[in-house]
Amino acid sequence: MAGDVIGVGMIGLGTVGSGVAELLRDQGDLYAQRTGKRIELRRVLVRDVEKAKASGLVDPAIVTDDQEQIISAKDIDVVIEVAGGVEPIDSLMQFALEHGKHVVTANKSLLAAKGPELFAVARDHGVSIAFEASCGGGIPCVTAMTTGLMANRIDALFGILNGTCNYILTEMTGSGKTYAQALAEAQEAGFAEADPALDVSGQDAAQKLAILASLAFGVRITGDDVHAIGVDGLDLEDITLGDEMGYDIKLLAIAERWPGSKWVNIGVQPCFIKKDELLAQVAGPYNALSVHGHAAGHTLYYGQGAGQLPTASAVVSDLLGIVSGSASAAFSNMRLTPDLTQPAHILDRRDTESAYYLRMQTLDVPGVMAEVTSILGDKGISLSQVLQHESKAGEVVSLVVTTHLTRLGDVEDAAEEIAGLEPIQGEPVIIRVIEMPA
Amino acid sequence: MAGDVIGVGMIGLGTVGSGVAELLRDQGDLYAQRTGKRIELRRVLVRDVEKAKASGLVDPAIVTDDQEQIISAKDIDVVIEVAGGVEPIDSLMQFALEHGKHVVTANKSLLAAKGPELFAVARDHGVSIAFEASCGGGIPCVTAMTTGLMANRIDALFGILNGTCNYILTEMTGSGKTYAQALAEAQEAGFAEADPALDVSGQDAAQKLAILASLAFGVRITGDDVHAIGVDGLDLEDITLGDEMGYDIKLLAIAERWPGSKWVNIGVQPCFIKKDELLAQVAGPYNALSVHGHAAGHTLYYGQGAGQLPTASAVVSDLLGIVSGSASAAFSNMRLTPDLTQPAHILDRRDTESAYYLRMQTLDVPGVMAEVTSILGDKGISLSQVLQHESKAGEVVSLVVTTHLTRLGDVEDAAEEIAGLEPIQGEPVIIRVIEMPA
Repeated sequence: MAGDVIGVGMIGLGTVGSGVAELLRDQGDLYAQRTGKRIELRRVLVRDVEKAKASGLVDPAIVTDDQEQIISAKDIDVVIEVAGGVEPIDSLMQFALEHGKHVVTANKSLLAAKGPELFAVARDHGVSIAFEASCGGGIPCVTAMTTGLMANRIDALFGILNGTCNYILTEMTGSGKTYAQALAEAQEAGFAEADPALDVSGQDAAQKLAILASLAFGVRITGDDVHAIGVDGLDLEDITLGDEMGYDIKLLAIAERWPGSKWVNIGVQPCFIKKDELLAQVAGPYNALSVHGHAAGHTLYYGQGAGQLPTASAVVSDLLGIVSGSASAAFSNMRLTPDLTQPAHILDRRDTESAYYLRMQTLDVPGVMAEVTSILGDKGISLSQVLQHESKAGEVVSLVVTTHLTRLGDVEDAAEEIAGLEPIQGEPVIIRVIEMPA
Repeated sequence: MAGDVIGVGMIGLGTVGSGVAELLRDQGDLYAQRTGKRIELRRVLVRDVEKAKASGLVDPAIVTDDQEQIISAKDIDVVIEVAGGVEPIDSLMQFALEHGKHVVTANKSLLAAKGPELFAVARDHGVSIAFEASCGGGIPCVTAMTTGLMANRIDALFGILNGTCNYILTEMTGSGKTYAQALAEAQEAGFAEADPALDVSGQDAAQKLAILASLAFGVRITGDDVHAIGVDGLDLEDITLGDEMGYDIKLLAIAERWPGSKWVNIGVQPCFIKKDELLAQVAGPYNALSVHGHAAGHTLYYGQGAGQLPTASAVVSDLLGIVSGSASAAFSNMRLTPDLTQPAHILDRRDTESAYYLRMQTLDVPGVMAEVTSILGDKGISLSQVLQHESKAGEVVSLVVTTHLTRLGDVEDAAEEIAGLEPIQGEPVIIRVIEMPA
């Protein structure tokens, strides 16, 4: 990037924006030493100018509510977008790109919804979009996918991509709290929003997974392509029973290339993993991404997936990558982004195969086990474990089976049939059991 | 990089070189799709041409023992160096750089010894040196340091950087094998060389740490600056006693910025860490690097630190980064490499502070505990745990203490005094106990 001083305009001055402003203010000398250039935050676009001026976070003279002062101003080289939301940010981004500004964004919703269009505009105007902060907060996992693992055909991603959900599950597992109790605690500790829907539904993780899987597999995947089951329907009893069988529960964002085919399986759901897996050790609000490459094998990236300074770290690292030219070269010359790739062939989730955990509530009457296992057997589902605690005849008891590798559609069909049996109460619970690749 | 076809020359066709050849042969289409360019392996320089031709690993027509066909040939754009060793490779690298070839190297010894000189030559000739494969095998930890974490002042690195040592320690811990038994097993399993000295002495990890810490702290550190204690002197008894106290043992490569000063503490040594730390979960031949940045906080990178395809993954990813221009831009425009930085201020290890584990062998006679604790007390060393198993009077017994934060020099002086006590047998064992940053 030419010139000794780089002009930056920022859209938004919320949590992440304040962190970015803090880094640029406090570490200016370090960044100048590393890049040989001074980086100047020249304008901050906000809705409420007076509030931002009074905040003390940035020089009041650079606060504006006039978007033109950022997206078309001659002295702005890079636009940092940390406002969030899809509209009207998408038009602002498009204008900025059309005016030759590089863009750094933390906005996963925007990329999941409008990524291909925006990437194409950037390419047409010889500028780049950097988006490390959109996935995994302070963990440089996008960079790993676009540079350090480039030599690999990526076969699978297994991610813990939502800190709120992981905090809730860690609490449920460790302290035997119910979902409602753990959520309330997470809200109190600042790890969950007042309206936690986007997080606990798995939608947030789904958007991040769409971005990461697009890069990993070189195909176009949107947030809507990712089937998401959240943690909000989880029953403490399943966590307790899974624990007895040697499993921890994690909300996993999974993208798998179906071996030897063009098909991709992609989804977010609570899964059981063996307690000694590294992903099982990721506790509290931390995130991690396991990547399985055909050459590097299993690599894992761990850190804080959200929070002011970790996310600001990703934003500013992207900015420095644009200043040095490395991020822009990767963007311009590598054909990874979904404006250049074809829509993915998403496998129907009923046709995916995995091991499963199946819990039924049943009246403890003679013959029920025979009926259940016969339904499973008829679908060709073979069992690896069966667990039923001692009970008194006539009581309702949990009956758990785990399966070997099985087609999900068959498990769902069997569960529906089982639900119709006289002694069975309610719908069986189905949870995927992950066998991590070697 | 200009042109639609990139010519590559490779020096060496050993384990890693064969892996690189395999990737370039099998994934040529994938790489062309990603970079828009064909990558052609045009020459391989070996000592024994006939053997290489007969190997079937590469087209016999491209095998040569004439170095000029690589380092000065017009049709070679990038030289991959996977031969290893310092001489005569350093002169070959210098010639190649002077002839305008970019260099990708996996050679940590070369960089630890001659890095600053070679980086300067590259810079003078407008080309770059990429060296992801020199540290951490398939784990893109160099890239994390030079791109994804750029916004951070890095405060500390804690690395498991040698798979041989980690395999040995995992075996000693899990199965109660002695060092000699575990080493023999590692050799049988292919995780240790016939001559394991470079690995088990900690020298290999020290060279990698010198490279990573130079980048992290922006100072010049050579392998010689890194004090190394290996796993070869470890006694199974200390592992067993540490286990009782809640610790796992790991050979840790540690670089710490001394808070608020210019001083750096850097060294490799077996350390105790709490069993629930993520680094404690890194088992067998795997490697991991924990990085503590002032903004990103704790991030960790995990994967296979050695092996044919993981290391080749790093080499070829670097190559693709040079082809796309991203690696070259980072090299040219970021001032990170030790040709541009000043020598580090290395703290005298006796002046570093940590908690320590101290084991003494003592005759179980009255008064010995009082004498030992009085020596420690006189040095201002306060204790956090004391462990002594039941014994019969007059027997030799292990007496273990762990300290709070203490200056190493004081611990060493106390240990020397303790060794002089009548009932004490031999020298006390001192092992650092790590309290990971929050």
